[in-house]
Amino acid sequence: MNYGMIRYILSSVFIFEGGFLLLPCLVALIYGESEGYCYLLVMGICISLGAMGRIRKVKNRAIYTREGYVAVSLSWILISLLGALPFYLTGEIPHYIDALFETISGFTTTGASILSDVEQLSYASAFWRCFTHWIGGMGVLVLVMAILPISGSYNMNLMRAESPGPSVGKLVPKVKSTAMILYGIYIMITLTEVIALMLAGLSPFTALTLTFSTVGTGGFALLNSSIGSYSMVVQTIIIVFMLLCAVNFGVFYLLLKKKPREALASEELHWFLAIVFGAAILITINIRDGFDSLFRAFHTALFQVASIITTTGFATADFDKWPEFSKAVLLGLMFIGACAGSTGGGLKVSRLMLLLRSAKDEIVRVSHPRSVRKVLMNGRMIPNNIVRGAHCYLVIYVGVVLVSFLLVSLDGFETTVNFTAVMTTLNNVGPGFGRIGPTGNFGDYGVLSKLILMFDMLIGRLELYPLLILFYIPRWKNK
Amino acid sequence: MNYGMIRYILSSVFIFEGGFLLLPCLVALIYGESEGYCYLLVMGICISLGAMGRIRKVKNRAIYTREGYVAVSLSWILISLLGALPFYLTGEIPHYIDALFETISGFTTTGASILSDVEQLSYASAFWRCFTHWIGGMGVLVLVMAILPISGSYNMNLMRAESPGPSVGKLVPKVKSTAMILYGIYIMITLTEVIALMLAGLSPFTALTLTFSTVGTGGFALLNSSIGSYSMVVQTIIIVFMLLCAVNFGVFYLLLKKKPREALASEELHWFLAIVFGAAILITINIRDGFDSLFRAFHTALFQVASIITTTGFATADFDKWPEFSKAVLLGLMFIGACAGSTGGGLKVSRLMLLLRSAKDEIVRVSHPRSVRKVLMNGRMIPNNIVRGAHCYLVIYVGVVLVSFLLVSLDGFETTVNFTAVMTTLNNVGPGFGRIGPTGNFGDYGVLSKLILMFDMLIGRLELYPLLILFYIPRWKNK
Repeated sequence: MNYGMIRYILSSVFIFEGGFLLLPCLVALIYGESEGYCYLLVMGICISLGAMGRIRKVKNRAIYTREGYVAVSLSWILISLLGALPFYLTGEIPHYIDALFETISGFTTTGASILSDVEQLSYASAFWRCFTHWIGGMGVLVLVMAILPISGSYNMNLMRAESPGPSVGKLVPKVKSTAMILYGIYIMITLTEVIALMLAGLSPFTALTLTFSTVGTGGFALLNSSIGSYSMVVQTIIIVFMLLCAVNFGVFYLLLKKKPREALASEELHWFLAIVFGAAILITINIRDGFDSLFRAFHTALFQVASIITTTGFATADFDKWPEFSKAVLLGLMFIGACAGSTGGGLKVSRLMLLLRSAKDEIVRVSHPRSVRKVLMNGRMIPNNIVRGAHCYLVIYVGVVLVSFLLVSLDGFETTVNFTAVMTTLNNVGPGFGRIGPTGNFGDYGVLSKLILMFDMLIGRLELYPLLILFYIPRWKNK
Repeated sequence: MNYGMIRYILSSVFIFEGGFLLLPCLVALIYGESEGYCYLLVMGICISLGAMGRIRKVKNRAIYTREGYVAVSLSWILISLLGALPFYLTGEIPHYIDALFETISGFTTTGASILSDVEQLSYASAFWRCFTHWIGGMGVLVLVMAILPISGSYNMNLMRAESPGPSVGKLVPKVKSTAMILYGIYIMITLTEVIALMLAGLSPFTALTLTFSTVGTGGFALLNSSIGSYSMVVQTIIIVFMLLCAVNFGVFYLLLKKKPREALASEELHWFLAIVFGAAILITINIRDGFDSLFRAFHTALFQVASIITTTGFATADFDKWPEFSKAVLLGLMFIGACAGSTGGGLKVSRLMLLLRSAKDEIVRVSHPRSVRKVLMNGRMIPNNIVRGAHCYLVIYVGVVLVSFLLVSLDGFETTVNFTAVMTTLNNVGPGFGRIGPTGNFGDYGVLSKLILMFDMLIGRLELYPLLILFYIPRWKNK
């Protein structure tokens, strides 16, 4: 294990976090809030820690797969531990464990909250809360790679550990350039949405924070009613950008390279759109009686569908009160999630496709034992190890759901609440059903349950393996 | 496709069912019930159909894998369609779809009922209801193979399609002998339990029917209180036999061959017992406050645990009223199920072991990409195709759960009821939570939901593949 290089990466991440914390300080300055000092203090801590960690030079710069995974999971844990400090120090979240829950929920772009009244937050904290979504959406290590000189062939192992999806597609041969392109597209989308929301009449602060929560597919909002009290235009803009950010960023890269035909040929994109509009139509039929017009019903259905499948978690309606069928559709969408290589969470559409195709092949193989079959995707053969990886992903996923559900049940809430609490955190969505629904929050859960759900958020965002590998460290030492 | 041979197998199965129907006729004769005529009529139909189908000789006796699967799934569907007739003709279940639900629930050893008052049934129907569990427990085709002369190498393909577990272990080289040994052990266990229950004071009729429901791991009972009103001795006997019949019958075969060391070395057996007693202890701790003594709490916990993990579905307590944690444990046990090669359902313990071991290997492989690893079981390497089969099993399983849950939700019951309805039928357990709990029944579900749940019971009992292969028949014709 190359501990020196892990220290170097973690230190860099601290410095970046320190830099990010400058923004809530500025917000506090603009609005004349004393909370700014807490942010300034934590910013100082981050930068000092980062600087100390980088004093000693690193000789061996090699990062192998396991170093990549360990560095990524430790980074996410440590930035959350530090990022939670301001909420706690300002006293806006009295318990550190709750502040940590909120911060992990932020960085992992989950959007599950323990706050019963988000409107009481200071501007600085409301800003930082939404900004964590933006940071976590594309991933802090991708940003580190885009900017820092980490030598060529190694940083692929960092990217692999942080990027969502069954396999990592580099857009260009160099990882550093790929990371820069990804962040470039991300910033472009962010700016576009901010401008659109301001044109729709929102204040710069509201436009900025809602954009962070949208493009990171997070779900933290400024009002207790989430997005429900904004105009239809604002809601429509948010639908569009939630969906955009749940699309594989490779599609946008191809569009920028003026290859629209290749971009739009993505099978994952077709499935994603088919699922979104299919689900929206099914729900519209199911809920139409409660609305004046079919259009309003469809708009509401589409917003909730887009919010859940992109794993954002905004709401314009209390879907907990919807008919069971609509709720079942939403629960299914939580499980499916966004496209690979996007800012969204969940199983990912391409992994679902892989799983379904391999299962279909297995059914045919069972009846024709001698047939040789291969799983295809976008017309290309998928190597067996990727298929096996997707299979084991589902195994671990089901295992994590079962164990988490069991432990969370100790708090004694209803089965549906506990089950959706696990599903919504593991898939980085945000709200569940019942007391954790769009109008509720996670505040009532005990400390053990909160720790379990935090673990689920992290393991969901990092796609299971990086965190699990941490449990194997003692073994490596012996080798 | 060898349609002639499929016709031959189905005809044989009809004749066997006709033979089985003789027993409820005798019961009706003993108790002087007019319902016996209905059973006699259906017996006549079965035997006539069987005889007609066997008039034309079959030239080509080859059964390949797909013929095996098709024959098995068609057999199960057709014996259910015919076996439901007496309930309908006697008027004891007024709707045929309900009668079919009850019969499929019987043959698949699920034990989910649409009856709100089972105590109103005639002796003949109460007998036939429990007897379907016994027939389905070991499988009607295994019996056909044990008795009929189906030539050697082919019937393996029938056995593979009907036997539970990730791989089929033949006990002896000849399939016919294996089938005979399996039924021999089954009959021995059955007789032992009948005698034990009669010694415990039950009437011959009660002892016999409860035994059918126990050894088939079915769950249909004679009283609305299930097993709750019988003595502790009877309950204890039933616990022992539920657990025995959820053990791989290969273990008993080794014991009979006086190889106790090999028999008890089965890793699956160790896991199974560890899960049973671990779960019982956890639940005891969770529910002990409601009982006078720790022993009674443990006894109640163990009964419910044994009932659910063996997928029998008897109850001595209304576990729907238990704390959430205990309910979550039971839900987990539904998913795990019994050992492979037993009469129980569910995922099977050995398949769970395979899945967990392959996932653990994958985690290590992710961090050491060049390591070559193999999944071991009882010290032997598991071929990749068996591991892949278990993976795809889980994929299809999750898919079936999601789609069934979605469709069943159309009836508008609570999320927990719908989810546990799917879990309990797909895993052939019987009761779920809420209105379908130990004191409830499935009668309120609509026709669509009942059809879905029947499909789930069949696909669960036959372990997914045989029924799914039916959907590919049109393709085979073209080849």
